[in-house]
Amino acid sequence: MAKTRDYKYELDTPCLTIDIDILEKNIAIMQAAADAAGKNLRPHAKTHKCSQLAKKQLEAGAIGVCAAKVSEAEVLADAGVQGILITGPVVTAQKIERLATILKKDSTIRVVVDHPENVHRLDDAMRGRRLSLDVLLDTDVGLGRTGVLPESALELRDHITHASSLRLKGVQAYAGFVQHIPSYPERKKASLECMQRAAALFRNLKEKERTCTIFSGAGTGTYDIDIQIPELTELQVGSYAVMDAEYLNIGVKDDPARFVDFQPALTLLTTVASVNHPEFVTVDAGLKSLYRHGGSPFVTTPGFTDLRYEWFGDEYGKLICKDGGDLPPLGTVLELVTSHCDPTINLFDCFYITRGEKVVDRWPIDLRGKSQ
Amino acid sequence: MAKTRDYKYELDTPCLTIDIDILEKNIAIMQAAADAAGKNLRPHAKTHKCSQLAKKQLEAGAIGVCAAKVSEAEVLADAGVQGILITGPVVTAQKIERLATILKKDSTIRVVVDHPENVHRLDDAMRGRRLSLDVLLDTDVGLGRTGVLPESALELRDHITHASSLRLKGVQAYAGFVQHIPSYPERKKASLECMQRAAALFRNLKEKERTCTIFSGAGTGTYDIDIQIPELTELQVGSYAVMDAEYLNIGVKDDPARFVDFQPALTLLTTVASVNHPEFVTVDAGLKSLYRHGGSPFVTTPGFTDLRYEWFGDEYGKLICKDGGDLPPLGTVLELVTSHCDPTINLFDCFYITRGEKVVDRWPIDLRGKSQ
Repeated sequence: MAKTRDYKYELDTPCLTIDIDILEKNIAIMQAAADAAGKNLRPHAKTHKCSQLAKKQLEAGAIGVCAAKVSEAEVLADAGVQGILITGPVVTAQKIERLATILKKDSTIRVVVDHPENVHRLDDAMRGRRLSLDVLLDTDVGLGRTGVLPESALELRDHITHASSLRLKGVQAYAGFVQHIPSYPERKKASLECMQRAAALFRNLKEKERTCTIFSGAGTGTYDIDIQIPELTELQVGSYAVMDAEYLNIGVKDDPARFVDFQPALTLLTTVASVNHPEFVTVDAGLKSLYRHGGSPFVTTPGFTDLRYEWFGDEYGKLICKDGGDLPPLGTVLELVTSHCDPTINLFDCFYITRGEKVVDRWPIDLRGKSQ
Repeated sequence: MAKTRDYKYELDTPCLTIDIDILEKNIAIMQAAADAAGKNLRPHAKTHKCSQLAKKQLEAGAIGVCAAKVSEAEVLADAGVQGILITGPVVTAQKIERLATILKKDSTIRVVVDHPENVHRLDDAMRGRRLSLDVLLDTDVGLGRTGVLPESALELRDHITHASSLRLKGVQAYAGFVQHIPSYPERKKASLECMQRAAALFRNLKEKERTCTIFSGAGTGTYDIDIQIPELTELQVGSYAVMDAEYLNIGVKDDPARFVDFQPALTLLTTVASVNHPEFVTVDAGLKSLYRHGGSPFVTTPGFTDLRYEWFGDEYGKLICKDGGDLPPLGTVLELVTSHCDPTINLFDCFYITRGEKVVDRWPIDLRGKSQ
């Protein structure tokens, strides 16, 4: 492990940096939006995979965080984070055992369910351990990935209410497929359609079950759209804190072409490693440090913003000169906004936290690799 | 961390398993091919990122291993692996410092160079530390990623021979862009064209520099092609040990459609997490555990080999029924061959080593995340 250097552009590369001022501003903007609408914020930790960053969100007013997997929840709980919602079903005996272990220490952890069989397995396991678990009914609003279909939701509700060790705490709806629709009006229409169906279900369940008080959903792409749904009680937004090229390339209310509400706090530093061609240079970040998914990464380093990044194998990237412009010399450190933040963050062990050009801290990405 | 279970299909998922019998057979076949042709083997550790697996290759007869980055070489050297060749240029002050630290402990480490400026920086740094470093001249045979262009090779040679702390030990040529050409005859033609140009350069340098004795190159896709080049002294093959869908889908000498020389030793285990649709199920392996690059992953579990995998977000995949076939029930553990082994391995902390259906060991992927 190389020692941490004070000056940002002396960090060994490839590495991830987070501008603390931008991060704090993003967190504050989202919290203020939720507060103004009377909604809670339970940001998704699957994006940043960092319990230290989660704590920043909690300090700013979040009521908890979301986790995608049990292994993420374990690390968050160990770090003292409360109010964890696991946003995918926990189905196998091993994972249910791990969930029960967390629940023993932290009764605020919740999980979604989307199938009667899963309800019964969870109920049996919790009853056998004399534990009580709050669950959210995960409803499929069109993504199809997880969630019960609307026509089976009431049947699933019955299974939950008959499960003596489970308590129906609310509804989850995540319209993942609408988050990156480039046009804001089209995204708004699509998201409201999805989420209003889930809102109707929530009203229905809430009438019958007084414990059913949470309606959790929304993503960064629809935060200011879903917030208008009266029934929604909390937002599960993730990417807003650090941002990425995929989100920055979609329109928002105030700009049809660019996501201007949040700024990119996360950047990747990469170094020019080979310069034997007149039209491009080779940099030291490839598939293994900049996940190939989502929008095109872009260079933010002044003087080189016209360079276009292309993946050049597992370990390298290519920065291509657009119109006979200048290429950076050998050894130059360049800064890029990543394509899709979540899977790229999962490739690194830490964030270097910067203020201006100074490295002020180093936060472990302690949920990295927690895919179980 | 879940405890390791003895039975393979009880492992918590997603996780990577390696069938030890297949791995050992792959290693033996490649070693035998090299031995029969009188070539050395220096397998690439960038693929498996595991010093324990590297040691298996050394025990079978490899003379060393390749590393893509300095940080990989550090871990390998710490694990006692000798004969490391770093196959990309080491250009920054930080990385050169790290290289010098390894060199102090292990004089067998070598690195490639592809630019006069890099030669001078390395020379200055090594001379200042009273160290002597063996280098290989990296020549670009068409990939363009790293390597000096043929017309500048002799000039670069002069820089190396005038650098008092460097010694020209050989030539490296890697034709990465030909490795996955599906047709074997076309791949053969393309690779021989590339590698014969490098062979001519090697003959030329060897005549003038008696220390220049290594001509290192080839990949899994061209191992039995490049082996026919008399000048080639060693093979840098990587994927053959574990294999992936990308390689399995290309033709070889004995089969125009399938890479039959090596078998897939590496598989990913994934569990069915949601079953609310008649035509597909959702499994717990997505972008963060199965890198989206290369060929399509395929299911090897008997009874389910007709299912088609699609990525379904960061944490999930979709297994789609082709023609009204059976879908696996909730909780079923399925086995898949990964799309591109290198970046997928880099997503995990360990391999579970299996013999048949029994888990016999657990090898840390100790080079995981070493992208610097």
